[in-house]
Amino acid sequence: MNTVITVVDLVGTFAFAISGATVGVRNRLDLFGVLVLSFAAAAAGGITRDVLIGATPPVALANWHYLAVSCVAGVVTFYRYADIKRLRNPVRVFDAVGLALFAVIGTLKALEHGLGPVAAILLGMLSGIGGGIVRDVLVARTPVVFQSDLYAIAAMLGAIVVVVGKALDLPPVPVMLASATLCFGLRYMAIRYDWHLPVAPHRDG
Amino acid sequence: MNTVITVVDLVGTFAFAISGATVGVRNRLDLFGVLVLSFAAAAAGGITRDVLIGATPPVALANWHYLAVSCVAGVVTFYRYADIKRLRNPVRVFDAVGLALFAVIGTLKALEHGLGPVAAILLGMLSGIGGGIVRDVLVARTPVVFQSDLYAIAAMLGAIVVVVGKALDLPPVPVMLASATLCFGLRYMAIRYDWHLPVAPHRDG
Amino acid sequence: MNTVITVVDLVGTFAFAISGATVGVRNRLDLFGVLVLSFAAAAAGGITRDVLIGATPPVALANWHYLAVSCVAGVVTFYRYADIKRLRNPVRVFDAVGLALFAVIGTLKALEHGLGPVAAILLGMLSGIGGGIVRDVLVARTPVVFQSDLYAIAAMLGAIVVVVGKALDLPPVPVMLASATLCFGLRYMAIRYDWHLPVAPHRDG
Repeated sequence: MNTVITVVDLVGTFAFAISGATVGVRNRLDLFGVLVLSFAAAAAGGITRDVLIGATPPVALANWHYLAVSCVAGVVTFYRYADIKRLRNPVRVFDAVGLALFAVIGTLKALEHGLGPVAAILLGMLSGIGGGIVRDVLVARTPVVFQSDLYAIAAMLGAIVVVVGKALDLPPVPVMLASATLCFGLRYMAIRYDWHLPVAPHRDG
Repeated sequence: MNTVITVVDLVGTFAFAISGATVGVRNRLDLFGVLVLSFAAAAAGGITRDVLIGATPPVALANWHYLAVSCVAGVVTFYRYADIKRLRNPVRVFDAVGLALFAVIGTLKALEHGLGPVAAILLGMLSGIGGGIVRDVLVARTPVVFQSDLYAIAAMLGAIVVVVGKALDLPPVPVMLASATLCFGLRYMAIRYDWHLPVAPHRDG
Repeated sequence: MNTVITVVDLVGTFAFAISGATVGVRNRLDLFGVLVLSFAAAAAGGITRDVLIGATPPVALANWHYLAVSCVAGVVTFYRYADIKRLRNPVRVFDAVGLALFAVIGTLKALEHGLGPVAAILLGMLSGIGGGIVRDVLVARTPVVFQSDLYAIAAMLGAIVVVVGKALDLPPVPVMLASATLCFGLRYMAIRYDWHLPVAPHRDG
C-alpha cells in the first residue's frame, strides 16, 4: 500500500510540476523561473498545509524527492514544450490523479494533527489546490481554480469523504479509495463534459 | 464583555468577507472563487499573524465560525450583488468596526505571545489589513490598502494605543475601548472626508 | 566578526528596502504602501525561511532594527526618488552584497535547525530572493528574479558552498567568505556584462 501511495504521490507531483512549468514557459520566464513555478505548483499546497498545522519543516522541503521530481518535470517542459503541449490530455488525467491523492493525504494529515472536521476539509482542499493558486499568483493572474471546472469542489468532496469515514470509524483503506475515486471521477467528468460552477449573475455594467 | 467581543468579531468578519466576495463577483469568479475570497479577506490577516507568532493551528481554522460566517457573506453577495452594492455605506462602517476590533485583538495576542512592542504593532496592523492584501493579491491587483484612505494608519494607531496602554499598565478594558474608538474614528473620518496619505512627488516621466 | 556581519546585514537590508521602495514609488503607492514594500523586500525572505523551519517569531519581527532600517530606506526613497534613481548603480552593488550575506546566513540557519542539504540550499536561496518575490507579487507583476540576471543562481551557488563546506567540516569563516564572494562576484558580473539564463525556445505562437 505504502509503495503504491509513494508512486502515485510522485506521479501527481510530476503532473502538478508540469502545470507549473507550462505556465512559466508561456510567461517567458527563464529556466530558473520555470523551475520555481514547477516546484511551487507541486509543493506549495502541502507546504502551506504543514505550516498551518505547525508541522515544520514541511515534508516537501524535508524530503528532497519532491524537489527532484519537480525539477525533472520543469526541465523537460522547458526544453520539450511542444511535446508537453501535445500530451495535454494525459497530463490533465495525471493532474486529476494528483489532486485526488493530495486531497486525501492532506485531509488525513490534518485530522492526525488534531484539527476539527471543518478545518481538515479546508486543509485537504488546500493541499490539492494550493499549488495551483501560488503558481498563478506568481505570474500575476487570478488563479484558474477560482474560475473553472469543479477543480476545488472535487478536492472538497474527496476531503469530506475522508472526514466522514473517520467520524464513522470506517476502515481507512476503502475510505481512502472511495474518496480518491470520487475526487478523480468528478474532476475527470468536469474535464470531459466541461462542467462548471455558476458565475454571479450581477455585473457592474 | 466576552459576548460583546464575540458578536463584534463576527460582525467584523462578515463585513470583511463581504469586501472579499464583492471583489470576487466583480472579477467574474465562480461561486467557489467568491467563497475563497470571502474567507481570505476575513481570515488571512489573523491566520498570518498566528503563523508568525507560532500559534498554530490558527484560530480562524480551529474555530469553524469564521468559515461559516464568511460563506454566508459570500453566498449572499454572490446571489444578491445588487443589494450589497446599494448597502455599500453601511458595509464600509461595519468594515471599519472590524478593522478596529481585529487590530486591537491582534496586538493583544502578539503581546501575550511575548513579542516586543514594535512587532506587536506590526502584527496588530497585519491582523487588520492582511485579509485585504491577500484578497487583492488573489485577483492580481495591487492591494488598495497601499493606495488609500488611511486604512492602515488607523489600524496602526489603534495598535499603538494598545501597546502604550500595556507598557503603562493601564486597565485593559478602557485601553481597548480607546484604541478601537481611535481606529474606527480615524477610518470613519477618512471615508467621510476622503482623507489620504501623500503619494510620492517624483515620477519616471 | 559578529560586528562585521551585523553591519553588512543592515547595509543589505537597506539596499533591499530601497529596491522595494523604488517599486512602490513607481507604482504610485502612498507613503504607507511604499514602507510596506520596503519592509517586504528586506524581510519577507527571512520571515518565510523562519516560518518554514519553525523558528517563530521570525527574527525580522523580533528584532526591530530591520523594520527601522527599512522605514528609513522607504522614507528616503519616497521623498528623494530622483536621487535614488541617480544612485542606481551603487544601490545594485549593495543589493548584491545583501544577496550574498542573506544567502549565506539563511543556509547556515537552515542547517542549524536540522534541515538536510537540499532543503538548506533552497532556504538559503529563499532568504536571498524571497523578499524580491513578495515585493513583486504585491504590485501584481511577475517577479523579476524569474526573468533575469542570474540573481537566483548566484544565491544558489553561495548556498551550495556553505552546505559543501559544512559537509566537509571545513572551518566556517573561510567557507562563509568564499560563499559570499562567489555569490557577490557572480551577481556583479551578471549586472556588469548582462548575463542571463536562457528562456524557453518554444512559444504558443
